[in-house]
Amino acid sequence: MRKIKGSITSPKGFTASAVAADIKEIGKTREDLCVLYSEKPCVAAGVFTKNTLKSGTVLLCHKTLENPTHQGVVALSGIANTLTGDDFEKAQKLQALAANFLHLSVKEVLLASTGKIGKVLPMEPIVAGFQKMPEPDAAFGDAAARAILTSDTAEKVTSYQEEIGGKTVTISAMAKGSGMIHPNMGTTLSFVTTDLAIEKELLQRALSIAVEDTLNMISIDGDMSTNDTCLVLANGMAENPKILCGKSEDYRRFVQLLVQVLQDLAQMIAGDAEGSTKLLTAHVSGVDTKEKARILAKGVISSARFKAAMSGVDGYWGRILASMGATMVDFDLKKVKVSYTWGNEKHTVYDHGKNIEFPTDKLESMGSSPEVVLEISMDAGKEEATAYGCDLTEDYIRHVVDYR
Amino acid sequence: MRKIKGSITSPKGFTASAVAADIKEIGKTREDLCVLYSEKPCVAAGVFTKNTLKSGTVLLCHKTLENPTHQGVVALSGIANTLTGDDFEKAQKLQALAANFLHLSVKEVLLASTGKIGKVLPMEPIVAGFQKMPEPDAAFGDAAARAILTSDTAEKVTSYQEEIGGKTVTISAMAKGSGMIHPNMGTTLSFVTTDLAIEKELLQRALSIAVEDTLNMISIDGDMSTNDTCLVLANGMAENPKILCGKSEDYRRFVQLLVQVLQDLAQMIAGDAEGSTKLLTAHVSGVDTKEKARILAKGVISSARFKAAMSGVDGYWGRILASMGATMVDFDLKKVKVSYTWGNEKHTVYDHGKNIEFPTDKLESMGSSPEVVLEISMDAGKEEATAYGCDLTEDYIRHVVDYR
Repeated sequence: MRKIKGSITSPKGFTASAVAADIKEIGKTREDLCVLYSEKPCVAAGVFTKNTLKSGTVLLCHKTLENPTHQGVVALSGIANTLTGDDFEKAQKLQALAANFLHLSVKEVLLASTGKIGKVLPMEPIVAGFQKMPEPDAAFGDAAARAILTSDTAEKVTSYQEEIGGKTVTISAMAKGSGMIHPNMGTTLSFVTTDLAIEKELLQRALSIAVEDTLNMISIDGDMSTNDTCLVLANGMAENPKILCGKSEDYRRFVQLLVQVLQDLAQMIAGDAEGSTKLLTAHVSGVDTKEKARILAKGVISSARFKAAMSGVDGYWGRILASMGATMVDFDLKKVKVSYTWGNEKHTVYDHGKNIEFPTDKLESMGSSPEVVLEISMDAGKEEATAYGCDLTEDYIRHVVDYR
Repeated sequence: MRKIKGSITSPKGFTASAVAADIKEIGKTREDLCVLYSEKPCVAAGVFTKNTLKSGTVLLCHKTLENPTHQGVVALSGIANTLTGDDFEKAQKLQALAANFLHLSVKEVLLASTGKIGKVLPMEPIVAGFQKMPEPDAAFGDAAARAILTSDTAEKVTSYQEEIGGKTVTISAMAKGSGMIHPNMGTTLSFVTTDLAIEKELLQRALSIAVEDTLNMISIDGDMSTNDTCLVLANGMAENPKILCGKSEDYRRFVQLLVQVLQDLAQMIAGDAEGSTKLLTAHVSGVDTKEKARILAKGVISSARFKAAMSGVDGYWGRILASMGATMVDFDLKKVKVSYTWGNEKHTVYDHGKNIEFPTDKLESMGSSPEVVLEISMDAGKEEATAYGCDLTEDYIRHVVDYR
């Protein structure tokens, strides 16, 4: 597996287009409407929000996904098209406009939307947007990555290549997300393209597995959106022998690739969280079951007290252990070890029942580090899990207040 | 039931004492060590944190509660006596010192501690504190209420009287709590005294019921402490016919009294939350089951986005409905009605599927109000629940960072 510089259009046969359609406000300078296109039909898979209130866009995308193949995706940002009463109908119009633009049938076009909840989606800017949207081209991958952003400060894109079945397979992914991010939400908006050849059901299985350990292990603020969507499209143009067996080496390699791109996105999302200054990673190991390891890792990364402490530069372990206990998972305190790692520094602060003072002269360098890794070992088994989050800062409040 | 001006020593036969023992730091000006005493033996009941990591103090209090009667309580603030390895032993010493001071056996003395987790409890200031502590007196009720506070800005005390079995029964309660407050934690530190005569098991049953709808319906920051304790002591000195039956009118009246004092404490705790500017109450009605009503009310009150919006003065309903959907409870959006009430103002912002714009000229008065009540009716049943919380402000972050 090797990381490459690329965009969502790096895999063979994929193109994109995007336009500033002024969906939310007039005179917006950034793209807010985009399409992805594959010159060959793809198999596709999706994971969606578990919020009982789902956007009309999510409901229609889920339904459309039942068709055997897809060749296009349309996504917009600014207005979520959610809880408005007419959101399913508006989603159908959006899908029809995109199908028309891409010369496809509506059955072949998947869709996603993100932005303000409860605002009616205006169709005029979207109709006008498609009229001025350039023809899809591989050169517009970055423009598409910009078009799905809301309050994000940066595009989130990652690409890899791997030999599978004797062929070079390329996989690329892009995401948006910087708030209302929590486990059990499927994810934020994420799109993955690949030229791999794989059977549709296996693609769905691979996605569901990969999401569990990546996008479902992020927590920003404990809130869960109504629009979260993760879609994967695979068009087979790498010409590898089609993956048909969930026990094959080729399938195992693809799952690894998919986990890698989604983990990259998870880290980029957590690192770009509204108002945060650093990516926090909680790695819990030595647990007897995977489920417990996940619960403990998520418990720590979701603790408002731990998150706030990390913004204020406090290396104290009390809040970490209290948040682990608050998950109600039983563990033996005397076997726990807690360490922080940032830059080239590593400090153990709790070791098998013993408090080790955090060196106060190191607080400043930890505080200014863009990433802090918390390692918690339990000495009680072989399972482990990693969760991704961010510090909680005064700026978070300002961002949430300003985002209306 | 009538509210009276009083303190934890208002019920017949109860006295208290408190002293500034400098447990956490030298030269503290406020009391941090206190005792409660009853001149007659009491039956007692308790509810404790569900955090799997419990303070030695909580563990010893739970064990001591197994004895049939109790006559004293000792509580301290500043250092939680938790996760230090010697916390159970230190709790035993604290209990012995208090028993000696009150001329009781250790079996008769309940205990509680709150403050910094993981710091070893120093015994010297406590020994010295008991040496200079005044003899218990009814006049020291307010001093005891101050002694249990940590970062609280105000004492939390409430008292009522009611005729039960032809006698005037008095009930008083005090609490501390302004952070790490969330449902399922038993509660923060709360102490209830009453001169009611009641059988011990019935007192425990009444407490467990009353906590469900009051202290367990508060959420400040989603964190759960290791030390939470709610104790009730009843000494029978009102001389009402002892309550022996859970179906009697007397028992029903007492449960109402207990719910009332714990609800008062819940509101005071939520209203005094670290860094918050207002008490938020979410009242959910018209639900088919009590459990769903509770989950929905807690879901709204726990949403970081809703809480932050309330600090920034945003009357928008999108975040409220999204947080209800995030609980994964199913409900019919078309039957929902959402209103805000503050001062003499009431505004409905969502009604059976229809968005009603919040009048922007009212935002300032809602923003500056110390209390906002959110009413959500579902039109789907007869059950209801109320949850208590607070807005999330930039000051919250500052408080958490400063509390080391």
